[in-house]
Amino acid sequence: MTELDEINAHYHAMPPVRAMQVRAVAYDGRSLEVHAPLAHNVNDKACAFGGSLVSLMTLAGWGLMTLKLREAGIRADVYVADSQVRYLAPLYADLAARATLAPDVDWASVLQAWQARGRARAGITASVSDPHGTVVADMTGRYAALRTA
Amino acid sequence: MTELDEINAHYHAMPPVRAMQVRAVAYDGRSLEVHAPLAHNVNDKACAFGGSLVSLMTLAGWGLMTLKLREAGIRADVYVADSQVRYLAPLYADLAARATLAPDVDWASVLQAWQARGRARAGITASVSDPHGTVVADMTGRYAALRTA
Repeated sequence: MTELDEINAHYHAMPPVRAMQVRAVAYDGRSLEVHAPLAHNVNDKACAFGGSLVSLMTLAGWGLMTLKLREAGIRADVYVADSQVRYLAPLYADLAARATLAPDVDWASVLQAWQARGRARAGITASVSDPHGTVVADMTGRYAALRTA
Repeated sequence: MTELDEINAHYHAMPPVRAMQVRAVAYDGRSLEVHAPLAHNVNDKACAFGGSLVSLMTLAGWGLMTLKLREAGIRADVYVADSQVRYLAPLYADLAARATLAPDVDWASVLQAWQARGRARAGITASVSDPHGTVVADMTGRYAALRTA
């Protein structure tokens, strides 16, 4: 099982995420890209449903945090704590979200916090772009990692 | 067709919202309550999926804005522009969100803006509570109303 297979298994274990047909497609150690087809995420105006946009960005952030921790040998339960979302333009295409650590995150400090306290937080940014590369929605969120219950 | 039937028809026209089994259940002129069953909105930890919580709050706000405008005889396209979301506690029960106008909103001014420019904005707050009344997630969002295309 590859690292992306494991993330996708988590996604598909959630009925609402399975209904969205969410799929993690690429991870390069810095960013995670997650896709979902428009047909399963469309609103009554024929463009992407806002709830699907924010769900996809939230899931991309959750997957990124989980993968970054796994690379450090850490298996944690990851939760989103809060987020700020902007809906900038309608999207009439399949959904593609990309998540990266927020610019102010020092990952070494995050891992240190985990070693010291068994919990850690990190800010993550995510966005959805249209096929021309224009950002149609973005998110900044804080994620918490806790010891697996 | 009652006003709630119309909101529910909109919800059910969206495949991801239909998958969540979202249902507007009560409107009293000030707040709109919207429900969704846990079974269709559960994550892999047996509690409510964060994306479903924010989707439900976003939909409750959309419905409230739409209903308040209808009361004033206005048929508009309503969009969410941005939102701030806090995930406060896990929810192990069916989802119930309630949306109201934000405390600083002067509804008469919103209607005046519509009459003057054919567009208007309003802040809306929404929250999800557990069966004991404890808030498990909340949202503040801004919604825009535009002339129907």
